[in-house]
Amino acid sequence: MERIPILKMGQFLLVTIQVDLYDRLALDLEADLIKQISEYESRAVMIDISAVTIVDSFMGRILNNIASMARILDAETVVVGMQPSVAITLVELGLPLAGIHTALNVERGIALLQSKVGTDRRTLQSNND
Amino acid sequence: MERIPILKMGQFLLVTIQVDLYDRLALDLEADLIKQISEYESRAVMIDISAVTIVDSFMGRILNNIASMARILDAETVVVGMQPSVAITLVELGLPLAGIHTALNVERGIALLQSKVGTDRRTLQSNND
Repeated sequence: MERIPILKMGQFLLVTIQVDLYDRLALDLEADLIKQISEYESRAVMIDISAVTIVDSFMGRILNNIASMARILDAETVVVGMQPSVAITLVELGLPLAGIHTALNVERGIALLQSKVGTDRRTLQSNND
Repeated sequence: MERIPILKMGQFLLVTIQVDLYDRLALDLEADLIKQISEYESRAVMIDISAVTIVDSFMGRILNNIASMARILDAETVVVGMQPSVAITLVELGLPLAGIHTALNVERGIALLQSKVGTDRRTLQSNND
């Protein structure tokens, strides 16, 4: 399984990082994301990193790259599910993810993005929450 | 990264399978899913297998197990994003995933689940008619 799947959910794209990102995989993810933002006219990218326990400067750079590329295509990026230890490491590495939105979990990420871009709530999650 | 993350989205739980499932990982996923269905009173589990290119009888059995466990807790299971070659293999293996809902992609899976959960809700409310 050499590609990270990108899930289209209404105007959003959702990516879950579950495996260690190495060069080729990260480049493919960037390319796939940009292609799909363009194809589906997506307004936002949500990246779930709740399974990421170890972070390094490479991962921080990839997240920054994705956010920068998405922004050029008029799409927001939000990173969700970050573990506390990862947040500590990112700041200690001097990578505070400036310019990237973050949220505690997917639901709050969706709420954040909806406030930013507005979308049809029914396509994302059940109502009556 | 030894656990598959489960994303809570309203009344649904979303799991993306990106890595080869081995015994321990699959058992952990089953346990985590059941725990979260109970904790969040989830109505449905959506399993995205768009990154799965090779399927065997073990994977088929795990999907069946998850669906059976979820059903006992009154939650629906839908498998989305299956690649055509995987569908062929499952049928040839004699594992047609009987009793598991399937949908072409996440959006159709959400629509399917909303129609199911919504139907349940109307059934409950029909006493007032």
